[in-house]
Amino acid sequence: MLQSYETLRQTGIATVRAQIRSGGYASHTAGLGRNLLQANLAIIPQEFALDFMRFCQRNPKPCPLIGASDTGNPILFTLGQDIDIRTDVPAYNIYRNGQLVQSVTEIGDLWTDDLVAFALGCSFTFEHALIEAGFELWHIANNVTVPMYRSSLETVPAGPFRGPTVVSMRMIPEERVEEAVAISARFPLAHGSPVHVGDPAAIGISDLSAPDWGDSVPQPAGHTPVFWACGVTPQAVIQQAALPLLITHKPGHMLITDVPDTAEIPIITNKNMPR
Amino acid sequence: MLQSYETLRQTGIATVRAQIRSGGYASHTAGLGRNLLQANLAIIPQEFALDFMRFCQRNPKPCPLIGASDTGNPILFTLGQDIDIRTDVPAYNIYRNGQLVQSVTEIGDLWTDDLVAFALGCSFTFEHALIEAGFELWHIANNVTVPMYRSSLETVPAGPFRGPTVVSMRMIPEERVEEAVAISARFPLAHGSPVHVGDPAAIGISDLSAPDWGDSVPQPAGHTPVFWACGVTPQAVIQQAALPLLITHKPGHMLITDVPDTAEIPIITNKNMPR
Repeated sequence: MLQSYETLRQTGIATVRAQIRSGGYASHTAGLGRNLLQANLAIIPQEFALDFMRFCQRNPKPCPLIGASDTGNPILFTLGQDIDIRTDVPAYNIYRNGQLVQSVTEIGDLWTDDLVAFALGCSFTFEHALIEAGFELWHIANNVTVPMYRSSLETVPAGPFRGPTVVSMRMIPEERVEEAVAISARFPLAHGSPVHVGDPAAIGISDLSAPDWGDSVPQPAGHTPVFWACGVTPQAVIQQAALPLLITHKPGHMLITDVPDTAEIPIITNKNMPR
Repeated sequence: MLQSYETLRQTGIATVRAQIRSGGYASHTAGLGRNLLQANLAIIPQEFALDFMRFCQRNPKPCPLIGASDTGNPILFTLGQDIDIRTDVPAYNIYRNGQLVQSVTEIGDLWTDDLVAFALGCSFTFEHALIEAGFELWHIANNVTVPMYRSSLETVPAGPFRGPTVVSMRMIPEERVEEAVAISARFPLAHGSPVHVGDPAAIGISDLSAPDWGDSVPQPAGHTPVFWACGVTPQAVIQQAALPLLITHKPGHMLITDVPDTAEIPIITNKNMPR
């Protein structure tokens, strides 16, 4: 039976995950599994995995790596008691040679012995902290997608992985910019502190009202645009590498982990761990 | 000409690195290149590199990865303007099949196209911060090596890499334990907050006065033993994996990077970066 977002918001992670796993829920995860770390997903052939891990290590702000599966093992045992990456994300995008070919709600038939699944931190974590501190985030209050831009900040390349840093933008009251910076800096697993504050042109963005992804937001007087590295970066970088196969989460449809979003490290103690 | 430690302590990183590179200095690096991140080193064949990166991701406290070279490229371009890992560490240990076979001051003749160099954060960084905050660290004040112990805390395995977490211990005044925890937590690239505070038996250590590595230290009244994850862990874990070749720094003889030890991320902007 299809579950509604409002019903699942009231329940614990076990119920949410069971619903996602069974196909009973296939929509976005913002606000679900409260206070748990959510993650971007990238599944690629092992052949490219070492370079991708190097890419994440070299670009920790856009690509905060929080989990890496064993090759061919779909169980992400460091992120949850029971996470099967073939079924536990509400919706997936399948790319072949860099082209989106399909969106699906489970990938059991695509999983093979040579795939590696990577989980990367996402902005939900620090947005949650900003909201708790009384910041109003327009895109959330108005139920649209945060505006994202291709910046002139180049990532540090590794193997076939290279390209511009994609940034997300939030308008912050001038007098609270410093506070927003400090709050987000506490979450290195969720992009950390901003990569730029102020003039968009300084990082190659000519028109704030024309984002490359997401929706345009108002620019009220007394507010400053603040730019954070964005999880779309690794997706764009892997797409341009045109791997034979790439599986990602569908934007907004994240992996919900068992890790508290304030955890110092993204690792849980797990009795099911291979020994 | 051999340079003395006291002479190099007064000079900048360029001079220190030039002396190390030329073989003019081959001793320990504590206190050199002040305020720069120092690193543990592990060089292994590419065949094992993906599992080692997974191991570091799964065990970020003992193994805070701060740099990974391209396969076969000895230039660590994310950690410095000019770091050549074949010459820029004062002394190296060479292991074959898990056995120490030689200590050398440069590895130009051992470097091959299939090697990958990894740099991992070390405790110098948070010790420096503790000292700045007025903590007296007995092992430093008395010029001995911090006591280290094999604990009962198991690492999360990856491929051939597995084994106990090695911890280092510092006696901290009871009333300042919380402060020491908070200070070290600010340095996730240097082992972060302690893994245990108090009773050694709780993490499998039966006799504090008999460390597995380093020197025994006094246990004054009113002090609590505080245990941090230690950079010896990856070395012990790689040794037990008995790889055909492993090259590490000689203990205490670290790689000095160009990265400030308070940096949010361990990446420098580098004009020499491959594109």
